[in-house]
Amino acid sequence: MNAEILSIGDELLIGQVINSNQAFIAERLNTVGIYGDKMTTVGDQKEEILSAFGRAYESHDVVTVTGGLGPTHDDITRAVVCTFFQTDLIINDEALENVKRIFARRNTDPRKINEEQALVPRGCTVIQNRLGTAPGYFFERDRKVFIVMPGVPYEMKAMMNDFVIPYFEKRDTGLIIRHRTLKTTGIAESFLAEQIGDVRELFSPDSGMSMAYLPSSFGVRLRITAKVKSIEDAENKIRSVELKLRNKIEKYIYAADEAELEDTVGKLLTERRLTLSVAESCTGGLITDRITNVSGSSTYFERGIVTYSNNSKIEELGVSPGLISQHGAVSREVAEAMAAGIRVQSRTDIGLSTTGIAGPTGGSPEKPVGLVWIGYSDQDNTFAIQFHFGGERRIIKERAAQAALELVRRTLLKSTE
Amino acid sequence: MNAEILSIGDELLIGQVINSNQAFIAERLNTVGIYGDKMTTVGDQKEEILSAFGRAYESHDVVTVTGGLGPTHDDITRAVVCTFFQTDLIINDEALENVKRIFARRNTDPRKINEEQALVPRGCTVIQNRLGTAPGYFFERDRKVFIVMPGVPYEMKAMMNDFVIPYFEKRDTGLIIRHRTLKTTGIAESFLAEQIGDVRELFSPDSGMSMAYLPSSFGVRLRITAKVKSIEDAENKIRSVELKLRNKIEKYIYAADEAELEDTVGKLLTERRLTLSVAESCTGGLITDRITNVSGSSTYFERGIVTYSNNSKIEELGVSPGLISQHGAVSREVAEAMAAGIRVQSRTDIGLSTTGIAGPTGGSPEKPVGLVWIGYSDQDNTFAIQFHFGGERRIIKERAAQAALELVRRTLLKSTE
Repeated sequence: MNAEILSIGDELLIGQVINSNQAFIAERLNTVGIYGDKMTTVGDQKEEILSAFGRAYESHDVVTVTGGLGPTHDDITRAVVCTFFQTDLIINDEALENVKRIFARRNTDPRKINEEQALVPRGCTVIQNRLGTAPGYFFERDRKVFIVMPGVPYEMKAMMNDFVIPYFEKRDTGLIIRHRTLKTTGIAESFLAEQIGDVRELFSPDSGMSMAYLPSSFGVRLRITAKVKSIEDAENKIRSVELKLRNKIEKYIYAADEAELEDTVGKLLTERRLTLSVAESCTGGLITDRITNVSGSSTYFERGIVTYSNNSKIEELGVSPGLISQHGAVSREVAEAMAAGIRVQSRTDIGLSTTGIAGPTGGSPEKPVGLVWIGYSDQDNTFAIQFHFGGERRIIKERAAQAALELVRRTLLKSTE
Repeated sequence: MNAEILSIGDELLIGQVINSNQAFIAERLNTVGIYGDKMTTVGDQKEEILSAFGRAYESHDVVTVTGGLGPTHDDITRAVVCTFFQTDLIINDEALENVKRIFARRNTDPRKINEEQALVPRGCTVIQNRLGTAPGYFFERDRKVFIVMPGVPYEMKAMMNDFVIPYFEKRDTGLIIRHRTLKTTGIAESFLAEQIGDVRELFSPDSGMSMAYLPSSFGVRLRITAKVKSIEDAENKIRSVELKLRNKIEKYIYAADEAELEDTVGKLLTERRLTLSVAESCTGGLITDRITNVSGSSTYFERGIVTYSNNSKIEELGVSPGLISQHGAVSREVAEAMAAGIRVQSRTDIGLSTTGIAGPTGGSPEKPVGLVWIGYSDQDNTFAIQFHFGGERRIIKERAAQAALELVRRTLLKSTE
């Protein structure tokens, strides 16, 4: 089955909001064998929405629509849905109760425009909204499925997970689609392609398998896809391709699928019963933010200190003032002293540090914007590595945080080689 | 002039990558009077790309295409562009030099597939790529403009800023489009709409003005749009609507346009020559990460400590062990002690703290997941406020960081009321 994923909203067309709904819906539909082969975004205008509905409905088994269900004057999706399916609005009691319940929780009464959100197109199946006031709708006609959901991401996600995916899981869609993504860092796309060689060595052209390279500023991901008849077949074929790839490029792969580098580092630390503390300057808390995105990180992450001033480096980490005045705050010596300082003070096994120039100001010919020293300290070794990152302030912070976590991963793996 | 913004890539259609390119291109084209009225995403298949090219070119003055220009087997956009414009490939010397230069910087020679990236469609204008190996192309035919760029965001952005926008700035597009966005937090969409009242009080229907509500999990943004004949007219009309809105809802507005809450807080601190330090538990470094995204934040941000363990709260912030055992780490008392502790220790004017349960584990009936105490301390006052945030771990971290920064903003503003 194929799907078109349709988004409605002027805020998307003027680029004010990045559309994350389409990716979420596509990924979830994929898991039940529905392949989104087109994504479209149109504005809050009746004629454009109607014509987009028509084209999407004509050539797809499934159409999802998000956006324009709110209570204000610029929300017109519901009216256009009624026109498209030649129906009118009726009140839905459960949706009305939901609106009242939400406002009771806020200790206030709903306004008229809120209560009107309980009006739904006659003939649809209502998808109740447990996180907001606007219900979704669901039409099953001509062997096709037409789904309308709010554009607020967490409301839409709850409807997808609670209603839409379970609905399709109960239907037989014929083809199974499975993906596996291997994430690499520290190697350019063309070198990776060279090490991997001809894809025909990985799978035959008629096997239902494919592989794609997905470069980003952090590294290159490799996506293996199986479009086959059974889950078992998909899993076996993906496993075989993954093994062949790992034989060629294992050391560059830091994680697979949803896992992030901080998950891998957390797993390594947990397995080895090691603890970590972090002293950040230029990354400003981003490393500890990523580490603490992992549930359970409190078992290996003890503390982090963002020492943005020289004074805080001296007071919090015991970096000697002479070291800073002699080498500058952005130097191998200070990075090493920060890593050793946070490790000793917090009595953790490993100390990690960053000091650099995130820009746009503060650079010099000797120490340009993008220069970052990353320090590592454990009971046997203390060292720092120099990096030169391109990009603007936020990108430099992100690349430095990625490189710091990767340094921990590779050092831990090397220690057991 | 209108535009269709076209993205190519299976990674988008399976939802692996969130498409941020479309929003960026739309926003930039808007500034030169080009309105993107449609965004489309199709996969790496020749027939789908060709038919998307045809439909977009037929009904739009400008078509932008991103993705599928890389060196590997799944990149087919260039070949389809040749088919569409009935042309063939020729080598572009400048692009070849660029490939060689990039590889020289890496101290290595380009591979054959890298050198082939210097092949471009005959008859196009080449857009050189200063950040990568794949050049962009530009066709001007039938009074229409067809632009092809790489899908790697920072490469595309550089081409837009260096080439595409300057190109259109030199042309007269007739209509001026300007936007202004006011960002609010701490008030629901329907209450905001009620306080604002009928939009006809803000502008007349034939004025070329419009306004939209854009809710998110952090708050509601209000976007004012002018589509008029001159920049002066646009600016005057937007200013007038903004003034009327500010008269109604000033206190909820924390920033406008690109500015984030951390920019506003930074500006307030700079104006008042105040300094800030932060002690984070459940937000794990996200607050200091946001604060340090602002260039120049080192003038008011002194240090931050992520005290993830009880021990680190005691050692780093001087929180008494008895306080933690009596009230628990997630409590008003500990939030206050953390805020006061970081303020005193770092000798800053203000101390800010968070302690809460980000989940998914660690909740209890008395202290459920989402409970967060935010503490504030200055020389006159120390207090903490309780919040209950919905959502999963990352959302709770984000909402808590937003609320903490907003607490600083409102407290600073109140102190001068």
